[in-house]
Amino acid sequence: MAEIKTIAVIGLGLIGGSILKGLKDKGFELLGIARRKETIDQALAENIINKGSTGIELACKADLIFVCTPINKTIETINLLSSKVKPETIITDVASLKGEILDFINTIQSPVRFIGGHPMAGTENKGLDTSSENLFEEAKWVLTPSKWSNQEDLIKLSSVIEKLGAKIVITDPIQHDKAVALISHMPLFLSQSLFGMVKAYPDKDISELALTLASSGFRDMTRLATTNPELSKDMLIQNKENVVAAVKELKKYLDELEKELIENEENFEKTIEKTASQRKKMYSSEGKNVL
Amino acid sequence: MAEIKTIAVIGLGLIGGSILKGLKDKGFELLGIARRKETIDQALAENIINKGSTGIELACKADLIFVCTPINKTIETINLLSSKVKPETIITDVASLKGEILDFINTIQSPVRFIGGHPMAGTENKGLDTSSENLFEEAKWVLTPSKWSNQEDLIKLSSVIEKLGAKIVITDPIQHDKAVALISHMPLFLSQSLFGMVKAYPDKDISELALTLASSGFRDMTRLATTNPELSKDMLIQNKENVVAAVKELKKYLDELEKELIENEENFEKTIEKTASQRKKMYSSEGKNVL
Repeated sequence: MAEIKTIAVIGLGLIGGSILKGLKDKGFELLGIARRKETIDQALAENIINKGSTGIELACKADLIFVCTPINKTIETINLLSSKVKPETIITDVASLKGEILDFINTIQSPVRFIGGHPMAGTENKGLDTSSENLFEEAKWVLTPSKWSNQEDLIKLSSVIEKLGAKIVITDPIQHDKAVALISHMPLFLSQSLFGMVKAYPDKDISELALTLASSGFRDMTRLATTNPELSKDMLIQNKENVVAAVKELKKYLDELEKELIENEENFEKTIEKTASQRKKMYSSEGKNVL
Repeated sequence: MAEIKTIAVIGLGLIGGSILKGLKDKGFELLGIARRKETIDQALAENIINKGSTGIELACKADLIFVCTPINKTIETINLLSSKVKPETIITDVASLKGEILDFINTIQSPVRFIGGHPMAGTENKGLDTSSENLFEEAKWVLTPSKWSNQEDLIKLSSVIEKLGAKIVITDPIQHDKAVALISHMPLFLSQSLFGMVKAYPDKDISELALTLASSGFRDMTRLATTNPELSKDMLIQNKENVVAAVKELKKYLDELEKELIENEENFEKTIEKTASQRKKMYSSEGKNVL
């Protein structure tokens, strides 16, 4: 099978930049596409791309294209590429939702060898400046094949991603979107609500004292609330149904735990002991998942 | 006014141990009281106490006593001390709830010069091994005077606590308990619920995939859930009313934010932008409160 020699990254933000930094000096020709010329100049100056352009055409000669635009531009960008790339070019993306994109790709007019992607890594920050060659080290990287991609494409793409230190998880796009609602989107919604609620607490003296006394626990629980709002909004709106379902499930759990707290202290203690030990176990058995 | 020369710490766990480690070599005679003789031996071997005992009597000759027992033993311990200490001895505690303790002290039979205390620092861990001389560095330390303590006592105690690097916040015990419900106890309850809910999610495939994909956001949001369950249970049960009120307020906020998400995307975006920026501001203007 033909080797991947040239890789293009469209969108040089936190994720795109980190992909390029991670693939530097690994033997690929790296191409960068960004909206702003200054970003291209910066990437060239940092030596993380061999060539750069503000036009998408440069990407079309690559063997593999990572679409790392904001999620609301992903479909548009893939569609643009679809009529221009070589037939053997593999296209992937990094959007945090996969259902809608795969639906679109599976019914696209000019078929492309697309495999959906979602690296489970990120920070509250955005932009090339905040990117890092280690961002994906030990992180999970979801792949959701489309009907146009084949096993060979999947193997080629996986081998590039593994060079970034990530671990591949292949799954169905619909399942993926439900799962990330549970562990990313709803927690973000929750973190926002926790901070917003304390800030807007009806008794202003208590609200102020609370924020004065807040320590590491509150800091950890509200860190997600600072996620780039433009990105947050897109994720939460596009995954609305799954987020609402997850919030509903959470409220049910809150009600049950509250009932135990009020009515049965013994069971309450057992429940929180069990959860504490399950949570500890989860993050101690895996390499990365240590506090 | 008479200087504080001898300080006793009752209970050599994370907090008591950290107080002793922080006060070491600061010119005080340090006494340690623990239930188990091995703990005393360890503290003597680590040179963090000058004398130790498994009996409370040793503490009674101190000028200042820190009661660092588990919260459900705090009142009992102060009561025991009340008939035995010198009349000028100052007693303080580190229990994370202040209302009930101050109620008790203010009506106690043998009045003691008690000032309630609550250092806003801690980790998920417990025990002398996990204690650290830096635990209170830059942390807030709440003091709630009782009717038996005077300004002079407050100044003496504050000066000792400031040697640990902590910042004093003087407040009313009832207000304190409501405020910590908002920023400590309810977030703990929430963190427990978030992990418990994903683990118990009705669709087992989704639950498993979600836990496989979980990354830093979920890790941060569920870290509090691992707080020592014995301690968690005591705090949540003893502050039950305030926790339930805070959970109610949170559910109200979740409902409102959900309504915006569903009905008014523009307002939703504004709300999460505002919250993100308020949260960022809070943790950038203060020394310690930086991510």
